Amino acid sequence: MSNTVGQIIKCRAAVAWEAGKPLVIEEVEVAPPQAGEVRLKILFTSLCHTDVYFWEAKGQTPLFPRIFGHEAGGIVESVGEGVTHLKPGDHALPVFTGECGECPHCKSEESNMCDLLRINTDRGVMLNDNKSRFSIKGQPVHHFVGTSTFSEYTVVHAGCVAKINPDAPLDKVCILSCGICTGLGATINVAKPKPGSSVAIFGLGAVGLAAAEGARISGASRIIGVDLVSSRFELGTTLLTSLKSLMIRININSMNVLLLTAIPILFMLAAKKFGVNEFVNPKEHDKPVQQVIAEMTNGGVDRAVECTGSIQAMISAFECVHDGWGVAVLVGVPSKDDAFKTHPMNFLNERTLKGTFYGNYKPRTDLPNVVEKYMKGELELEKFITHTVPFSEINKAFDYMLKGESIRCIIKMEE
Amino acid sequence: MSNTVGQIIKCRAAVAWEAGKPLVIEEVEVAPPQAGEVRLKILFTSLCHTDVYFWEAKGQTPLFPRIFGHEAGGIVESVGEGVTHLKPGDHALPVFTGECGECPHCKSEESNMCDLLRINTDRGVMLNDNKSRFSIKGQPVHHFVGTSTFSEYTVVHAGCVAKINPDAPLDKVCILSCGICTGLGATINVAKPKPGSSVAIFGLGAVGLAAAEGARISGASRIIGVDLVSSRFELGTTLLTSLKSLMIRININSMNVLLLTAIPILFMLAAKKFGVNEFVNPKEHDKPVQQVIAEMTNGGVDRAVECTGSIQAMISAFECVHDGWGVAVLVGVPSKDDAFKTHPMNFLNERTLKGTFYGNYKPRTDLPNVVEKYMKGELELEKFITHTVPFSEINKAFDYMLKGESIRCIIKMEE
Repeated sequence: MSNTVGQIIKCRAAVAWEAGKPLVIEEVEVAPPQAGEVRLKILFTSLCHTDVYFWEAKGQTPLFPRIFGHEAGGIVESVGEGVTHLKPGDHALPVFTGECGECPHCKSEESNMCDLLRINTDRGVMLNDNKSRFSIKGQPVHHFVGTSTFSEYTVVHAGCVAKINPDAPLDKVCILSCGICTGLGATINVAKPKPGSSVAIFGLGAVGLAAAEGARISGASRIIGVDLVSSRFELGTTLLTSLKSLMIRININSMNVLLLTAIPILFMLAAKKFGVNEFVNPKEHDKPVQQVIAEMTNGGVDRAVECTGSIQAMISAFECVHDGWGVAVLVGVPSKDDAFKTHPMNFLNERTLKGTFYGNYKPRTDLPNVVEKYMKGELELEKFITHTVPFSEINKAFDYMLKGESIRCIIKMEE
Repeated sequence: MSNTVGQIIKCRAAVAWEAGKPLVIEEVEVAPPQAGEVRLKILFTSLCHTDVYFWEAKGQTPLFPRIFGHEAGGIVESVGEGVTHLKPGDHALPVFTGECGECPHCKSEESNMCDLLRINTDRGVMLNDNKSRFSIKGQPVHHFVGTSTFSEYTVVHAGCVAKINPDAPLDKVCILSCGICTGLGATINVAKPKPGSSVAIFGLGAVGLAAAEGARISGASRIIGVDLVSSRFELGTTLLTSLKSLMIRININSMNVLLLTAIPILFMLAAKKFGVNEFVNPKEHDKPVQQVIAEMTNGGVDRAVECTGSIQAMISAFECVHDGWGVAVLVGVPSKDDAFKTHPMNFLNERTLKGTFYGNYKPRTDLPNVVEKYMKGELELEKFITHTVPFSEINKAFDYMLKGESIRCIIKMEE
C-alpha cells in the first residue's frame, strides 16, 4: 500500500445525499491523514442503529452529503505526523469515541469519556483543521462521528483507532466498534454481576443481547429478558421453530418419546445462545414490570441493564433491583425532554443507579483485550451476525435493520 | 451484677408521656431478657435528631408512653437463652438496626439491611413476643427502635448489640450507635473518595460533619461543605473568633505583621477540624448550587454526600458530581411524597447515585472495627461532643438540639 502514502486515494464510498434516501455508491477522494490522524483501508463494516438514526435525521440538524458508518475493521494504510502507536499494516478497529491519553478522563481509571475525542454527532469534519478528508470532484462530503466507515478508505483521529491482534477475523470483531461493546461492557464493567446472580436486561436489540452475553460470561444464572416488542423474542422463536422441525424429522425416524420433552429444553437452549433464560413482556402483565420481576426474584434482581432508551424502562430497570445490593445500569439514550423520576427511598434502601457510555471501555486500551476474549472463545460474536451483504448492496443492511430482521449485518467492502 | 440475673430490675428511665412534652424521669421495671435478647446497663447515651423527630410525632402515628434513645454505650448485665456472642460484663453498643446473621442481607457482603432486625420505627415492642420489657407499676411502656437507651437498663435483641473493646471510653464511642457511623460510613464505605479528591457534603449537621470526617480520613483534599443555614457554619466561625482573639492578644505583644496573613489560615484550620475546607451557602448564589460547585471544581466534585433529606439537595448533590467518575451518595431521609428527578443523561455521562443506610455498616461485624479506628487515633470523636448533661437533666439535651447549639450531647446515666 506504500505507493498511496501521502497521496489522495480514489475509492468507493456509500454516500448519503439526503435524509432517509438510499445511499449511493460514489467514487470519492480521500485525502492523506494529517498530524495525529490515520488512514484506514476498511475491509468490513457493520450497520448500527445510530447510523440509521442520523441517516433518518428525525429531530437532529441534518448534515448531508455524509458518509455514515462507525462499526468496522480495517488495516492501517498510512499514518500522519506524530502517530506512534500505529503503523501501516496494523489491524485496527476505528471507534466513534476516542482516547487522547492526556485528559483527566483518559487519566482516570474510572472514565472513558475522553474530553478531546468524545463522540460529537454534530461535527462533520476532522478536529485538526475543521475540514473533511472526503470529497467528490473537489466538493467536501461530511464525516460521521469521526469514523465514516462506509468507505473503502477513511481518515480517523489516531486516538480513535484501536490496534488489535492481526489474527482476529475482521469480519467478526468489527462489530466490537460500537453496539456489542456498549452492551457487553455495561454488564461486565459496570453492573458486574457475580456468578450465580440474577440480571434483568431491558430491551433485546443488539445492545441488550450483548448485555445478556456479558451476563452469561459473568456467570449469572438467571438472565431475564424484558421487551415490549414480541418480535424481539423472534430469534429464540425462529431458532426454536427450526430446531422443532429438526426434531420432528428425527422423530419420524425413531425418537417419538423424546419429542415432547425436548421442545422446552430446546427453547431454553435457543434463548440461552444470548444468555437469556427467562422472558417478560410488560404488555402481558397488569402490574408494573418492576413488580412482576420483584415477585419472580424474591424481592428484585441483583442487577438490571437498560438498553432501550425509554424513560419508563429506565425507571422500571432501577426499581426492579433488590434493595441492599441491587445495581441498575442505564445504556439506552433518552430523549431530550425525558426526566428520570423515582422515590428517593428507592436509593436509600441501598440501590445503585449508574450510567455508562460505550460500556466504559477505553477504546485504545481496552478493545484489544475484548478481541482477545473473543479469540479465547470466552466471548461469542458469531451469534450476533445474522446477515452479510456486499458493499454494493449496503442499502439491504438498512432494510434488514428497519424491518427488525437483523441483529448485525456485515458489509463486505471488497465485494 | 449477677444478683439481678433473671429478675426484674427497677431503675430510672426518662419516659416520654406525650408528643413534644418534656421527658419525665420515672422508676420503671425492666423485665429479664428473653431468648435471643440482652439486658444492658446503659452508662452513656446521646441524643440524635431521630429521637427528637419521633418524640415530636409530627406526621407519624404517635406511640406513647415511650422510652426513646438509641445512641448509647453500656455493659451487658445478662443474656437470654441462645445468646452466645455476648456475656455479662461485655462492653457493648446497642444499635437501632441489627444483624441476624442468617438472612440474605446479612449473608451479602454488600448489604447491612437485615431482614429480621431492620429498623422499624412503628414497633414499640420486642420481636420475640410482641410485648414490652418496660413497665411502670405493671403498665407497659413502649420501646423505641429496639434500643430505648434513655433508661439505666434496657433490653435489646442480641442481633442489635455490638461487642466492643472494653478499653474504649463509652462516653465517646456511644455516639457511634447511629448518626456518626451513618455519615462516616456514607463516605468511607459508599462514596469511597480517593486520596487527593474533592468531596461535597450537603448538610453540616452531625451526620454531615461525620461524612466530612470520613472524607478527611480518606485523604480527600477539597472538602466542600454546603448548607442553607448559616448557623451551621458557626462552629467554624466561633472557633475562628476565639482564635482571632488569641492572635490579637499575641499581636499586641509582638507579632504585628503575622496577624493579617494568619487570619485566613486560622479559619482554614478551624474548619478543618471536621475536614471541611470550603463552604458554599446556596442562598448566596443566583445559580443552582450544582453549577456553582461545578465551576469551583472544573466540572464537578469527585464525590458528594447528601445529609439533609431535602429533595432539592439530593438532586443538587447528584448533579454536582463530575461526569465520567462522579459518585453521589444519599443519606438524608426524604419526605413520603418526594420525587427524585433528573435528566437521565446525567446518569449516562457515567455518574453514579447510591443510597446508604447506617453507612453500610453491619452493626455486629463492623462496629468493633470502627471503635478500633477511634482507639488508634484515626477517627476523631471528641470534636462531635459539644455538651454533656447528667441523666436528671436530659431535657436540656433536647433544648440544645432544638436550638441547633449541639452536635452531640452526652447524657451521663449515673448522674
